[in-house]
Amino acid sequence: MKEQKHIIELSKDEIINHFLLVNKIELRKTKTGKDFISFEFSDATRSINANMWDGIGNLNNEIQKGQVVFVKGIVDEFQNNLQIKISSVRSVKEDENVSPSDFLPKSKRNLKEMEKEFKDRIEKLSNNYLKELVSSIFVEENFKKFIKAPAGKSWHHAYISGLIEHTLEIIKICDLMCDFHSELNRDLLVSGAMLHDFGKTIELNYESSFEYTNKGKLIGHIVLAAMLIEEEAKKIKDFPEELKLHLIHLVLSHQGKLEFASPVIPKTTEAIALYQADELSAKVNAYKNTIKQGAKEGENWTKFIHLANTDLTKTNISEYREEKSSTTLFD
Amino acid sequence: MKEQKHIIELSKDEIINHFLLVNKIELRKTKTGKDFISFEFSDATRSINANMWDGIGNLNNEIQKGQVVFVKGIVDEFQNNLQIKISSVRSVKEDENVSPSDFLPKSKRNLKEMEKEFKDRIEKLSNNYLKELVSSIFVEENFKKFIKAPAGKSWHHAYISGLIEHTLEIIKICDLMCDFHSELNRDLLVSGAMLHDFGKTIELNYESSFEYTNKGKLIGHIVLAAMLIEEEAKKIKDFPEELKLHLIHLVLSHQGKLEFASPVIPKTTEAIALYQADELSAKVNAYKNTIKQGAKEGENWTKFIHLANTDLTKTNISEYREEKSSTTLFD
Amino acid sequence: MKEQKHIIELSKDEIINHFLLVNKIELRKTKTGKDFISFEFSDATRSINANMWDGIGNLNNEIQKGQVVFVKGIVDEFQNNLQIKISSVRSVKEDENVSPSDFLPKSKRNLKEMEKEFKDRIEKLSNNYLKELVSSIFVEENFKKFIKAPAGKSWHHAYISGLIEHTLEIIKICDLMCDFHSELNRDLLVSGAMLHDFGKTIELNYESSFEYTNKGKLIGHIVLAAMLIEEEAKKIKDFPEELKLHLIHLVLSHQGKLEFASPVIPKTTEAIALYQADELSAKVNAYKNTIKQGAKEGENWTKFIHLANTDLTKTNISEYREEKSSTTLFD
Amino acid sequence: MKEQKHIIELSKDEIINHFLLVNKIELRKTKTGKDFISFEFSDATRSINANMWDGIGNLNNEIQKGQVVFVKGIVDEFQNNLQIKISSVRSVKEDENVSPSDFLPKSKRNLKEMEKEFKDRIEKLSNNYLKELVSSIFVEENFKKFIKAPAGKSWHHAYISGLIEHTLEIIKICDLMCDFHSELNRDLLVSGAMLHDFGKTIELNYESSFEYTNKGKLIGHIVLAAMLIEEEAKKIKDFPEELKLHLIHLVLSHQGKLEFASPVIPKTTEAIALYQADELSAKVNAYKNTIKQGAKEGENWTKFIHLANTDLTKTNISEYREEKSSTTLFD
Amino acid sequence: MKEQKHIIELSKDEIINHFLLVNKIELRKTKTGKDFISFEFSDATRSINANMWDGIGNLNNEIQKGQVVFVKGIVDEFQNNLQIKISSVRSVKEDENVSPSDFLPKSKRNLKEMEKEFKDRIEKLSNNYLKELVSSIFVEENFKKFIKAPAGKSWHHAYISGLIEHTLEIIKICDLMCDFHSELNRDLLVSGAMLHDFGKTIELNYESSFEYTNKGKLIGHIVLAAMLIEEEAKKIKDFPEELKLHLIHLVLSHQGKLEFASPVIPKTTEAIALYQADELSAKVNAYKNTIKQGAKEGENWTKFIHLANTDLTKTNISEYREEKSSTTLFD
Amino acid sequence: MKEQKHIIELSKDEIINHFLLVNKIELRKTKTGKDFISFEFSDATRSINANMWDGIGNLNNEIQKGQVVFVKGIVDEFQNNLQIKISSVRSVKEDENVSPSDFLPKSKRNLKEMEKEFKDRIEKLSNNYLKELVSSIFVEENFKKFIKAPAGKSWHHAYISGLIEHTLEIIKICDLMCDFHSELNRDLLVSGAMLHDFGKTIELNYESSFEYTNKGKLIGHIVLAAMLIEEEAKKIKDFPEELKLHLIHLVLSHQGKLEFASPVIPKTTEAIALYQADELSAKVNAYKNTIKQGAKEGENWTKFIHLANTDLTKTNISEYREEKSSTTLFD
Repeated sequence: MKEQKHIIELSKDEIINHFLLVNKIELRKTKTGKDFISFEFSDATRSINANMWDGIGNLNNEIQKGQVVFVKGIVDEFQNNLQIKISSVRSVKEDENVSPSDFLPKSKRNLKEMEKEFKDRIEKLSNNYLKELVSSIFVEENFKKFIKAPAGKSWHHAYISGLIEHTLEIIKICDLMCDFHSELNRDLLVSGAMLHDFGKTIELNYESSFEYTNKGKLIGHIVLAAMLIEEEAKKIKDFPEELKLHLIHLVLSHQGKLEFASPVIPKTTEAIALYQADELSAKVNAYKNTIKQGAKEGENWTKFIHLANTDLTKTNISEYREEKSSTTLFD
Repeated sequence: MKEQKHIIELSKDEIINHFLLVNKIELRKTKTGKDFISFEFSDATRSINANMWDGIGNLNNEIQKGQVVFVKGIVDEFQNNLQIKISSVRSVKEDENVSPSDFLPKSKRNLKEMEKEFKDRIEKLSNNYLKELVSSIFVEENFKKFIKAPAGKSWHHAYISGLIEHTLEIIKICDLMCDFHSELNRDLLVSGAMLHDFGKTIELNYESSFEYTNKGKLIGHIVLAAMLIEEEAKKIKDFPEELKLHLIHLVLSHQGKLEFASPVIPKTTEAIALYQADELSAKVNAYKNTIKQGAKEGENWTKFIHLANTDLTKTNISEYREEKSSTTLFD
Repeated sequence: MKEQKHIIELSKDEIINHFLLVNKIELRKTKTGKDFISFEFSDATRSINANMWDGIGNLNNEIQKGQVVFVKGIVDEFQNNLQIKISSVRSVKEDENVSPSDFLPKSKRNLKEMEKEFKDRIEKLSNNYLKELVSSIFVEENFKKFIKAPAGKSWHHAYISGLIEHTLEIIKICDLMCDFHSELNRDLLVSGAMLHDFGKTIELNYESSFEYTNKGKLIGHIVLAAMLIEEEAKKIKDFPEELKLHLIHLVLSHQGKLEFASPVIPKTTEAIALYQADELSAKVNAYKNTIKQGAKEGENWTKFIHLANTDLTKTNISEYREEKSSTTLFD
Repeated sequence: MKEQKHIIELSKDEIINHFLLVNKIELRKTKTGKDFISFEFSDATRSINANMWDGIGNLNNEIQKGQVVFVKGIVDEFQNNLQIKISSVRSVKEDENVSPSDFLPKSKRNLKEMEKEFKDRIEKLSNNYLKELVSSIFVEENFKKFIKAPAGKSWHHAYISGLIEHTLEIIKICDLMCDFHSELNRDLLVSGAMLHDFGKTIELNYESSFEYTNKGKLIGHIVLAAMLIEEEAKKIKDFPEELKLHLIHLVLSHQGKLEFASPVIPKTTEAIALYQADELSAKVNAYKNTIKQGAKEGENWTKFIHLANTDLTKTNISEYREEKSSTTLFD
Repeated sequence: MKEQKHIIELSKDEIINHFLLVNKIELRKTKTGKDFISFEFSDATRSINANMWDGIGNLNNEIQKGQVVFVKGIVDEFQNNLQIKISSVRSVKEDENVSPSDFLPKSKRNLKEMEKEFKDRIEKLSNNYLKELVSSIFVEENFKKFIKAPAGKSWHHAYISGLIEHTLEIIKICDLMCDFHSELNRDLLVSGAMLHDFGKTIELNYESSFEYTNKGKLIGHIVLAAMLIEEEAKKIKDFPEELKLHLIHLVLSHQGKLEFASPVIPKTTEAIALYQADELSAKVNAYKNTIKQGAKEGENWTKFIHLANTDLTKTNISEYREEKSSTTLFD
Repeated sequence: MKEQKHIIELSKDEIINHFLLVNKIELRKTKTGKDFISFEFSDATRSINANMWDGIGNLNNEIQKGQVVFVKGIVDEFQNNLQIKISSVRSVKEDENVSPSDFLPKSKRNLKEMEKEFKDRIEKLSNNYLKELVSSIFVEENFKKFIKAPAGKSWHHAYISGLIEHTLEIIKICDLMCDFHSELNRDLLVSGAMLHDFGKTIELNYESSFEYTNKGKLIGHIVLAAMLIEEEAKKIKDFPEELKLHLIHLVLSHQGKLEFASPVIPKTTEAIALYQADELSAKVNAYKNTIKQGAKEGENWTKFIHLANTDLTKTNISEYREEKSSTTLFD
């Protein structure tokens, strides 16, 4: 796909020659009875409204939500918001080589690096039953889905490759906890961390937007992952029954509370470690992104955020930050 | 203090020549009307009941709860529990050099090492206002209390030097989160981690048992710490008002929810990180210790644990653990 | 097993020549230091304490909880309660043909009749996929467990064959709802009713008392049943994917709320019908039995019942009941 | 009233010659300052917006919400919704014999049949006190209200004659539970079922829409029914005090929980049976209707339903339904 | 009844010649098989255990819980608690003129004074409908019950004449609120205050202890009072319907929340005023008495109080109280 | 400021020559692309929308939210609501002597009278430590803020001088409770009442609208007041430590429950009295004002009020009120 300015960088009166993802398309009528088409487009940075007033022909039947189109037009302003006045719009051609998922938000981390970190950590598992089980679940076909999937629909790591980014954070936090507590079974805990949200690759559809699948709604990612582990463990000769129970328990209990949709709650030290590591990774990511996106220019507070049960602040205290940005825990 | 067998290592018919801490002392009467004294003693490993049937004289007025005594007697058994049949008991002499706190449970970590880790981390703070503030709060007199205090009365890190052990875990978890997220203000977050539970040195009494003080019950460690920061920051020339606000906010919100006694809930990314890091450190420690102490010999499950809302298991899966015990995240 | 008076029918000074189940066995000491053994025995009607003062030999090592023994002795009274003064006790011999489960409470309904009702209803399923799936799960080996299992540990239908009794009630209530509402998919709903608690045959141990298994605690009967359906459906050629989803959804959501340990909540009319039918059957059985067992002689109110959040009354209004006891809905 | 096409069957450009119920009427101004009238009309199938641009005269003072009018006009479309462009509108004449309640949604069951079922069941009550009491409350004047009332404002059985339909379902479920449990007092339970929601005839106004009355809001249908039973029982010679207490208890506790507005919770087996039967009937009806009305064309999921705490699915699995539609529990 | 030392004033070795109320009576056996009787006695100040070892004859059948007896004996001590060693005990004779309720705790306020205050306030009601209604409910027979009743079983004003004491406090608080807010309907609010807990005279039995009646448990004091107002208002010619609705609403909603067993919640300013005034009076009385009774000698904190959700302190700050004890709001 | 008609008294076609407060200002475009300015203005009685179509020049940059302007124009009507058609608007001049706070809603009570009541009550404090502490906090500069502040943003006493009005009500209620209960420490309780909400003078900004400050959001008025008492008490020689603890406890616990943002809950009788008095004053004020403002003309019920969890009624029962309006508790 050719380089193009991101929607977030556009300003009034700019010329549009863009590939964009269709979020909504609706045939409307002006007060005077004339048909026009109202769109919502998006790219990886944000969404924008657009109207096409002339020459709409049969476009509303040819173009559908979730599809990428090529748009020509100009940027306009309406009630303080930018929008596009479309002069023409067409479906993409196959050789233009664009896919809807190019227009979804993406992890800022380097994907190759994340893949390597993940595979290296599998290699380091020292219990052979667990290593074989984890490897069989992350076979190439599944791994491809895994590295693309978001970790959620909208709250945390809700972007392409968010799931692997989130999973890596949890693995590292769990490894740190194992350094503190020799009583923790590191192989078990890390395997549980790797698998805990794998069901999200089935629960969510993330081709052209992030939506729950029917399977996701009727069964849920937790039970989907548990079923998969049960199935794969049966294929491994002499997989220890008790080890399987504990691993499935980690996956089932990783949301920590019944009201968060875990059918059992943590009953082992590994299980509580996984739940709390998940919370830590998820909440910090969610707050960070909510503050970035949620506060309007010139205001220090976001609107009320239901999942945080408060508004959040972006008051700038960056002038009091450490000077040595490279300081880490381990230098 | 001389070496002596721990209570947890005693068996029936052993001879007792021990310094022990008095948890309870009560004058009772047998059915036949004879006076005897019933004690509960403890050392750092556990508690044990004891009875003194003869020669009690005026002992019940001389000896008090919270005092260390020297006990002679023999180990007996009653309804499947060991107890001590006392032949004599006396208060300790000054030159015997024992103190009640020697009989309280203690952190397994090396205290000198923890002190050094903590002081080194203060040194690494790069914001000078914060470094000065933190240093002024951890002046020698306060630091002495801090390194002795438990982190709680009974749930997590509820032992001598538990507070510094817990605080160090949180600092490291927070540093790891700062490695993941450059948006976090590392100095602010780490300073908040250092101070978040400092009020527990005032909230709790930990001389001869772990009890809340009146101040602890009527004000609570959260507000006590906030008042202290307010007071010390005023003494530092030009301490930035906004930085102080954010630091006090970290302390006030670190229990995460109003119903957990935080008067405000996290409204910054640093605040949510501190709350979740605290939860992770506290819960893993609490579950680990509850499982160690709570499951009876030959049973795989503890009794129902109210703070976990379930029973916990100690089913042994250690045969499936990694072989290389030294594996860490960073090798 | 020979006929013997039930514990509930015993009175003071009666001679005991009974097979009884051992609930508890404990070696104790009198104040004067003599060893004796304290038992709790039970049969299907209730439990009773017993003491053996003489000739205990090595009995406390030979006899274990969960075993049936033959007891000789006499009924005594202590603090208003009956207890047994044991003269001798021995393990049962193989040819005496008694099993611990004979001493557990049992459903009052005729088991053969219940088995027939259940199998007839399977036969009436008109969707062949569902009939094959249900039949494959209720193969003889599983059916044997199913017809013996209780529906719970203590609250409702907590007796041998309670699970099939409960399941039959729910099937009939669901069939009635299908008569009211032609929109309901009868085959799907009835199949869901049949399978909804099948996991309890794995979750509970009911050989000599009702206890959760490790699998029951770490995974739970809901997910255990879901895994089984997933596995069996895979073996049936062309089993419709969507039908399987809906059936698993029925099982997963049948406890109606996340906080009742369902990982998903009802999202179809069949699912809400199954949940509410389950509640109706369970609660009426639980209240009826609680009132029967819970109210002391001469008192009209039970103690406070936590699961009902109130005390319950057995005030007798039976003099105002219908005269024709055979009146039913359908005559 | 003459036959006319239902609103739900209309399509663009159809001619309107309809009696319709006025839900809303409002005088508005166009941007150019001209007055027009905006209506919302409804019939038993749904509601539709309508505008009258010309010749409005004094109509906005002559016509009121809750009144039936005769409308002429044509069906138009605006932003994907149909609406009516009115050419004339007038109040109905007395001899046109239409009433607002003809335009409210109605039970699909045959009313005569329901009346007969209900009266027959009263006849079958074998306790004469209860039969007399129930009969005195369902005297002709009250019965007329009862057979017309909806069972609620919007959630379940929220249509004309919904109350009797709902009550009959509960009676049948209760009768089935009495077949299972001989301990239940059938006459008492069925009488309680008959009376439990009678207060809704006072709590609701259902002449031209479903609204709470002042009495309904300040006292509520539960206490209104209890007062009525108290009053009527006093008129019956020797009505047993305890029987009255139990009957009033059934009515007061039938919403099952304090937070659902029952001032006492179920303390008898009959009371818990009535509550759970009520829940079963209400929820199945509510989910069924919500799914019918709530899912848009071409979508499988309704919007989020607050009272269900989820969205609901209408995914079509009807191809896997039983072939013999007449199968019932009892054939 | 003759003067006698209160139980709370007794000390070891004092001679007992007392009328006492029997709270419990139980026939027991010593380890050696001899029968004895164990009692719990009480007077208005507290309760005490007592044992009768000799000459018990048939006493356990002659004497019953709730009866007053004349006891001879001596005060003894057992495990730090006083108890009575009985030499003889007999039922009271009619001419001894003692009644069980003399032995229940009583309000510290002068009853005659409270009666006068209450009747004077009725006289000051200026709305004649309300004055007539209130007067008809407080007819002599009801008033006698009202001035004796406690306001509750154990939490607040749980003593004889506690109900009138509590009601008078609320009336005065409501009158003060009417002084602040002229919008409040004073007559309505004060009438509601007078009647709000009248149902407690029926809900509770307070002859020889404080217990709920069957009517109290199955219907509750709130609905009992509402029914009575409904009944009495019907007897008053032209009693305004709307006024009655508002008065019943005050009674029904006075516990403020559904989960506190009010079937409707406050929907008028008078209703919220009554609820909050009730809370204020109840809580202050409850905390005051709990602190008085709950803290052990030498300790500053009560045990955990469930209804307060905390422990309470009696730390003595009386040295910092005002010197002029007569200071009031109005001097 | 000159006299002018209040917004609430305006009607269509009236001429506007008014000082008004700017709540919102926004530059918009008509459909035809012409710029206009949309305002929301307010005075102490209510708000009104306004549009300026011509001659807008650079006004949108000159005028800002929170400023007072002088407006000329005419009252217009749009969709049943009045709005202003502006002909000119200009900023106020300094000598016009108007301030934004003149346009905020105000207490109906006489401020001088309230100031005198408050100061007189301080004078009556008999404990000198408390009197000195309270006086030092209410020094002139703070008192000025205190007498202007609202007690909240929108729920109760949400108007200029609402805080002192609310505080005085609580003081009087507390004094009345002290008359009932001699155990209460009057000086302590009244001092706590005076200080309990003082932190709101810092938590809120009330210059041109009622908004939370950053300090208010990040720390909250409860801890702000506690810090201030701590600081001021330190300046008073020999201020008794325990007295300070109890006073700070009153402030910290005055919202009564953790979930209402009190970091500790009431543990003394004074603390529970203060919490309940606060509730009584706040709720009655809130309900009264909500009913006044919330019910539309001709309707008897407000919309659903979330903080009351119900709708409220203004049904008129004033014809049944007392005739003697001067009746008070004390005549």
